[in-house]
Amino acid sequence: MKIGLAAFSLVILCVSASAQNQPPVVAPTPAAVRSARPKSPEVHTDRSVTFRFAAPNAKAVQLFLEGAMPAPMTKDEAGVWSITVAPLEPDWYGYSFLSDGVFAIDPANHWLKPNLIATQSMVHVPGPSSLPWEINDVPHGDLHHHLYRAKVTDDFRDYYVYTPPGYDPLGNTKYPVLYLLHGFSDDAQAWPMVGKADIILDNLISEGKAKPMIVVMPFGYGNPAVIEGGFGILEKDIRLRDDNLAKFTQGLLSEIIPQVETNYRVDGDQKSRAIAGLSMGGSESLLTGLNHLDKFAWVASFSAGALPESYDQYFSGLTSSANGKLKLLWIACGTADFLIANNRKFRDWLTTKGVNHVDVETPGAHTWMVWRRNLATLAPLLFR
Amino acid sequence: MKIGLAAFSLVILCVSASAQNQPPVVAPTPAAVRSARPKSPEVHTDRSVTFRFAAPNAKAVQLFLEGAMPAPMTKDEAGVWSITVAPLEPDWYGYSFLSDGVFAIDPANHWLKPNLIATQSMVHVPGPSSLPWEINDVPHGDLHHHLYRAKVTDDFRDYYVYTPPGYDPLGNTKYPVLYLLHGFSDDAQAWPMVGKADIILDNLISEGKAKPMIVVMPFGYGNPAVIEGGFGILEKDIRLRDDNLAKFTQGLLSEIIPQVETNYRVDGDQKSRAIAGLSMGGSESLLTGLNHLDKFAWVASFSAGALPESYDQYFSGLTSSANGKLKLLWIACGTADFLIANNRKFRDWLTTKGVNHVDVETPGAHTWMVWRRNLATLAPLLFR
Repeated sequence: MKIGLAAFSLVILCVSASAQNQPPVVAPTPAAVRSARPKSPEVHTDRSVTFRFAAPNAKAVQLFLEGAMPAPMTKDEAGVWSITVAPLEPDWYGYSFLSDGVFAIDPANHWLKPNLIATQSMVHVPGPSSLPWEINDVPHGDLHHHLYRAKVTDDFRDYYVYTPPGYDPLGNTKYPVLYLLHGFSDDAQAWPMVGKADIILDNLISEGKAKPMIVVMPFGYGNPAVIEGGFGILEKDIRLRDDNLAKFTQGLLSEIIPQVETNYRVDGDQKSRAIAGLSMGGSESLLTGLNHLDKFAWVASFSAGALPESYDQYFSGLTSSANGKLKLLWIACGTADFLIANNRKFRDWLTTKGVNHVDVETPGAHTWMVWRRNLATLAPLLFR
Repeated sequence: MKIGLAAFSLVILCVSASAQNQPPVVAPTPAAVRSARPKSPEVHTDRSVTFRFAAPNAKAVQLFLEGAMPAPMTKDEAGVWSITVAPLEPDWYGYSFLSDGVFAIDPANHWLKPNLIATQSMVHVPGPSSLPWEINDVPHGDLHHHLYRAKVTDDFRDYYVYTPPGYDPLGNTKYPVLYLLHGFSDDAQAWPMVGKADIILDNLISEGKAKPMIVVMPFGYGNPAVIEGGFGILEKDIRLRDDNLAKFTQGLLSEIIPQVETNYRVDGDQKSRAIAGLSMGGSESLLTGLNHLDKFAWVASFSAGALPESYDQYFSGLTSSANGKLKLLWIACGTADFLIANNRKFRDWLTTKGVNHVDVETPGAHTWMVWRRNLATLAPLLFR
């Protein structure tokens, strides 16, 4: 974790091969090619932010900032494009530059928002320590990264496990587990790296707001071919969507959960197991959780997306008898999210079925600013 | 771990705010702005690689490929710049595009080479399973990510811990530990993400070539201000260099090692503790290790850089009596590395002091292709 690193200057030296039959050298030493980089992003004390991008030959550069419309940047005489945006709520924001049609990360910023389709940069607008994603001087849990050979999907894949502060593999305490799923185009590192799930849990647990829990963050694709299909594929190709979902569920139930319950101090009772996710992962949570109520007592979705609309088919066994097994069914969506109507429709259907659920509508769109708050609101409710 | 994901197409929809007082929306759904991206990188069966970058308005685009001289790309009628490089040895290679003076990652490739000064993309040229960085169907160890409040440096920082396959926190086995340090401009994730240290150890251990060991990969800056200084700062600002080194050593000895030895099943004997690193981390390994032979019996450097040349001062207590404590002093450098002369000079000085050491000169320059091989060669020698 790097704190307080400001803008950098880049120096690359191209050294000629010093001996025959040796590969040529590109070495990070002073300084034949110097690319002086502007400071970017610059977060001002009023929380306005200036973004800068040196591109003297570009004809048009736009800022794509998470939660905002694309905004044109203007070029100065040195060829540096810039824009200052109005004060932002303290948070982390993804952004990138669209320079003559080409998306670019900010070369002056090492904070990345990894993504399988479009890597972006991230800017932190600091706020008070009471914000759940701020790193505070509290006990910190650990993140564990597991790589395994998956039989269901016939590939190698990974998942992250958060263990709370004080977690003792030798101790007698057994922890409840939240399975926390990312969205379409993310991968398993999205919740820790972008969603700050570990930091949020650290803070909530240290304040006594959330029960100490283990959080498992798997790779959320049963069929990674959906990524090659790009955005919209889950709506366009129903067979692929369903294959992606079925294999995700199968892999979670038959591979990941058994691994986690073997290797960690886990309370394996249904009442100690939750599943939640964002966007595609929200639908995976609903479909996996509500169709396996013997396994999950806590089910939540954040901005659920690509949920099949023939609910009677996809949740065929779901009746009001679920209320006896469900401790919480929590369905959140931002009111500015393009998925709000779909979420309302699903909630209405649940109501007709007599399935108890908590409806959560918040400000905001289809953004991580909403999902971090969703996690911070949900976690305290779990395992009570 | 994503396997077999090919090129993606990017679709971003800008949805107008659907209600007043709502933030506007940038949503990943079909499809007002479509940026059709070329396939990049494309690894051919003969291991030549084509890189493509869509930038119709750019005047000049170069490929910066790790270990190679910058190479001009050529533009086709669609505005896509491309270059095909001659067959590459199987490995992972960092690269970026320099487009009209602006460094860019490859927008069509989600594999990142994170770096505090210049994030790049990475391309995998697959090779036989015998290559130590290839993911094989063998038992896999785990990576653990720790965040802590550091007193020495008064900040929050992180480190990664690799535990080998079969590691049992409840068991009686105590493991030796390799402290493995990154170079200037890297951060703690460099060895696992770029250096593939976990995969290399998995393979070596499963083949019986390396002893099962724990590998600890800390954040290697005692004073992160060196990063703001950019490349060359360690040669230019001796006080900053020495402060960076001193606090790194202090943090390692007084904070990280005690944490690791408290939280993992570690054999704390000097003969079970190794330190190795690349470039700046190579110098940190030499200076920390050789000045604390009560702590480290195994010391190694890969392409050591920014090593102070007044050896008598910085290694003031080092005499041939070190040979009784050192199990191995292993100093590697590529013959095409711009640091080869410095490394030879240091080895000569060790010889004059009567300090036993193993000199390793390999093909290659200041690149991760060298350092992965260094790790794969060194690890089997340790803790014997």
